[in-house]
Amino acid sequence: MQTVLRSKNGVEAIIGHDLPFVVVGERINPTGRKALAAEMLAGNFERVKQDAIAQVKAGATVLDVNAGLGVANAHELEPEVMVKAIEAVQSVVDVPLSIDSSVVNALRAGIKAAGGRPLINSVTGEEERMEAVFPLIAEHQCAVIVICNDETGISMDPKVRFEVAKRIVARAESYGIGRENLLIDPLVMPAGAVPGAGKAVLELVRWINDDLGCNTICGASNVSFGLPDREAINANFLAMLIAGGMTSAITNPLKPELKKAILAADMLMGHDENCMSWLKYQRQLAREAAAAAGGGAAPADAREARRAARRTE
Amino acid sequence: MQTVLRSKNGVEAIIGHDLPFVVVGERINPTGRKALAAEMLAGNFERVKQDAIAQVKAGATVLDVNAGLGVANAHELEPEVMVKAIEAVQSVVDVPLSIDSSVVNALRAGIKAAGGRPLINSVTGEEERMEAVFPLIAEHQCAVIVICNDETGISMDPKVRFEVAKRIVARAESYGIGRENLLIDPLVMPAGAVPGAGKAVLELVRWINDDLGCNTICGASNVSFGLPDREAINANFLAMLIAGGMTSAITNPLKPELKKAILAADMLMGHDENCMSWLKYQRQLAREAAAAAGGGAAPADAREARRAARRTE
Repeated sequence: MQTVLRSKNGVEAIIGHDLPFVVVGERINPTGRKALAAEMLAGNFERVKQDAIAQVKAGATVLDVNAGLGVANAHELEPEVMVKAIEAVQSVVDVPLSIDSSVVNALRAGIKAAGGRPLINSVTGEEERMEAVFPLIAEHQCAVIVICNDETGISMDPKVRFEVAKRIVARAESYGIGRENLLIDPLVMPAGAVPGAGKAVLELVRWINDDLGCNTICGASNVSFGLPDREAINANFLAMLIAGGMTSAITNPLKPELKKAILAADMLMGHDENCMSWLKYQRQLAREAAAAAGGGAAPADAREARRAARRTE
Repeated sequence: MQTVLRSKNGVEAIIGHDLPFVVVGERINPTGRKALAAEMLAGNFERVKQDAIAQVKAGATVLDVNAGLGVANAHELEPEVMVKAIEAVQSVVDVPLSIDSSVVNALRAGIKAAGGRPLINSVTGEEERMEAVFPLIAEHQCAVIVICNDETGISMDPKVRFEVAKRIVARAESYGIGRENLLIDPLVMPAGAVPGAGKAVLELVRWINDDLGCNTICGASNVSFGLPDREAINANFLAMLIAGGMTSAITNPLKPELKKAILAADMLMGHDENCMSWLKYQRQLAREAAAAAGGGAAPADAREARRAARRTE
């Protein structure tokens, strides 16, 4: 089953089980980024543009755009800020977008501004949310992220979360939305607080793949919340998720360990023909290391990286 | 199903699906290590002892001992060298051993010298090998690594490898050897030459878990043969294997990326109570970084590591 996203100009990102893992860049989000929030509020979208360019360069093939500014009248402002943010992104890169908002009017405005076939982030099993979001998805033929919780909250029992997922899928179908347009987010809990949180997600992905056939997505980095060396945990978790059949994640492609883990896992799953992406990335690292070493003696890492690059060229 | 290995003095290593991943240290092996081979031939086992100490310190709970010196009369020498190597290891550490040889007399001598309940590395589906090895396993109540190939070689088709595994398991049972004493090695092919080599292993592990219930083991590093940045590939592959239900590997615990991947994956699978092993390892890294930084200004890594350690203490 393939989920096809499309930019205004027709550039596609395809999510599917026998395809390379799709990275949705998460950086364009003012939550927890005060400087960015202040700039966006003041109508300054330079950092948004820089984030868009950097994430696409680092391998994101879809960009999430969130315009929740966290101010008192945020809900009123959000549709307008969303449109401006989308236009800023579109002025510098041409990739499909993920429109990320709890405000339905911001989603509506974002869909219109995005054009093409965006991803909507997100719908839950809450009745009010489904009634607001599904008609938009059906009308505009978008794809949507399905979060496995409902009015009762997030269950710690993966079986309950799976039941919620099935109910939302059935409800989407009643709106004429096909399963290929539903990206299910099994919800990643922090492993420090919920023992076996990673295993629970792997189980859910397996059930979703076997029973629903839908593609899956998650915000992987929540798994390491509160623990030291988060990047290492997140990177290994992404490799584990790819092994378990997850098809995409909302994450930060600018973190080198994450990028490396995703490329290695794709290659090991046979989703990197002739290991081309892996070899290309290694050559890039070698060039960067050589450049960083400048004219002087190259550090051991750079030498090793250059040797590796020569072996592969 | 649990596979219990035991040292001469009763120290156990238990391999099983709901337990931490077991690392069998691979370093005591003169293949490809000329200096070690020459020393062992000359009766000098100092490096063997150092390798034993370092690997156990780095987290190996079983040590593989190989005494194949690669000289003309290696087969005649091997039983004696094996015994000496085992005695050297036992003089410095107390962990169960994996006796690694193609020479049946070396296995026999090794079993006797090892005492306790060693692991035998290995049996294949080749008739001659099964007839030679299984009686030893049955007589001494050891565990044995089952390699999924036979007289026809190694099939590139995982389905064929699974059929070979099933046949060897049935044959072992005819000798009275229970499944709990069979660690199945699905055979890891180089991903650079065999596209999707990682996925094939994951499929095999799933079939072995679902149909045979046996524990599994592999030499994971073969997957990266011929590719640049092998340690990163191997580390991510180990995390993927743990996610897929593999229970142990013969690998090099002295490689920090591998160790970190295994600890992260164990934690994410819920096999690290209260994340204690992960936190302990992070504190160790922080101490090492602080020590390396000495009295001078700590580099960013060391500062970050110390901060991480403080957060977790």
